[in-house]
Amino acid sequence: MQNKQGTALYYSVKEQILNRIEQGIYPIGGKLPSESDLCTEFEVSRTTVRLALQQLEQEGRIYKMQGKGTFVSQPKIQETITQTINTFSEQMKSIGLQAHSEVLSLEMIPATLSLANFLDIKPNEPIIELIRLRFAEQKPYQHSTSYVPWKVAPHLIHDDCSGSLFELLKTKYHLKILKSVESIEPIIPDSNISNLLGIPENTASFRSESITYTTDKVPIEYSSTIVRGDFAKFVTERYYHF
Amino acid sequence: MQNKQGTALYYSVKEQILNRIEQGIYPIGGKLPSESDLCTEFEVSRTTVRLALQQLEQEGRIYKMQGKGTFVSQPKIQETITQTINTFSEQMKSIGLQAHSEVLSLEMIPATLSLANFLDIKPNEPIIELIRLRFAEQKPYQHSTSYVPWKVAPHLIHDDCSGSLFELLKTKYHLKILKSVESIEPIIPDSNISNLLGIPENTASFRSESITYTTDKVPIEYSSTIVRGDFAKFVTERYYHF
Repeated sequence: MQNKQGTALYYSVKEQILNRIEQGIYPIGGKLPSESDLCTEFEVSRTTVRLALQQLEQEGRIYKMQGKGTFVSQPKIQETITQTINTFSEQMKSIGLQAHSEVLSLEMIPATLSLANFLDIKPNEPIIELIRLRFAEQKPYQHSTSYVPWKVAPHLIHDDCSGSLFELLKTKYHLKILKSVESIEPIIPDSNISNLLGIPENTASFRSESITYTTDKVPIEYSSTIVRGDFAKFVTERYYHF
Repeated sequence: MQNKQGTALYYSVKEQILNRIEQGIYPIGGKLPSESDLCTEFEVSRTTVRLALQQLEQEGRIYKMQGKGTFVSQPKIQETITQTINTFSEQMKSIGLQAHSEVLSLEMIPATLSLANFLDIKPNEPIIELIRLRFAEQKPYQHSTSYVPWKVAPHLIHDDCSGSLFELLKTKYHLKILKSVESIEPIIPDSNISNLLGIPENTASFRSESITYTTDKVPIEYSSTIVRGDFAKFVTERYYHF
């Protein structure tokens, strides 16, 4: 293999593997040739092949399974960061994916200090905690925990919460939702959530927190959602002004 | 310590530690009491204290230093995801932080396959690679690599690139920038970049990729930026429409 001037050798190997993935020569979910086969084919050292594979792994294009080999990853779900709130199923539908949610737990708890702060209520006031697992194309995609003050939606604990929570708050509890303030951070999910999402431990993922307000500026929901990092990519467009 | 009904004990310990951090009883950069001191004070088991500390670490509020103890983290930089492109120093200034950049390397290389795809040029066409480390308040914050086709800005390799690249492309090369399409993913930076950013290995971070287009829809820059996850949080507001 020729080493292009100024380009690290491993980068060139990486590019050629990527190219094969894009052309479907190495199909999604398929196994890559072994390290030593790649060494022979590209006429490079094992160190070079490892560096190329390491970068591809970091970029989420391939993943390793202990004792089984290296496989081509599912392409990422590209979610657009919009200015409007969309339900989970709307978001998924807009990119052509089937979605559904499973309720893992739904209970009434006393508000902790930080939940009380977020929701502008007193500590120990009753709140409803709703934990859901959201699926895209039958694969677990998000682990979401929502908190709603009990006084805002007193019957919520008996409702079917497998659909849109906002839709329910709007139609059944007549809440006028204005906006959500959302933040996104990178995290390593704990082992419980990693198991539920079906990802290897130490998979870099997103944590999204949001507080939702009514038109009267009353906070009515706080949520913390873990989004599988090996599956998700947020996309946005910015315009030039200066 | 009283265990509030329905609230896990570790959660309550976590909340109290958080509260002390927020009140400055445990100051930023300061060391937390040892696990056994926390056990004694809160009258809980070591497992409970560990769970609380583990969650606080995952949320980026505290960090461990091998053999030295547990410390309170710097609060995160909250960058708003805007609809407009701002220069790095503008972004930092808007949240009251001093910023500067250092050029780590600036060279001409042949375009790899994927760069050629991104920039709509031929493989091996010359492009300029600019690698910068960006600082907020004198601390390394972002590691950014930009690629600009040579034909778009032929003299760039001799320019001072420590300021805004877009400003330079606009004023010196008369390019009319329209927009950037940006994506954000969670990643674990490689050890080289972790070292440059001064973060422990395996710190969940952001990778932001962007392609910038002129008003004639010509792609003129591709960039890949690693943003320290222990330092950064992206914030956005969404409005309700349905």
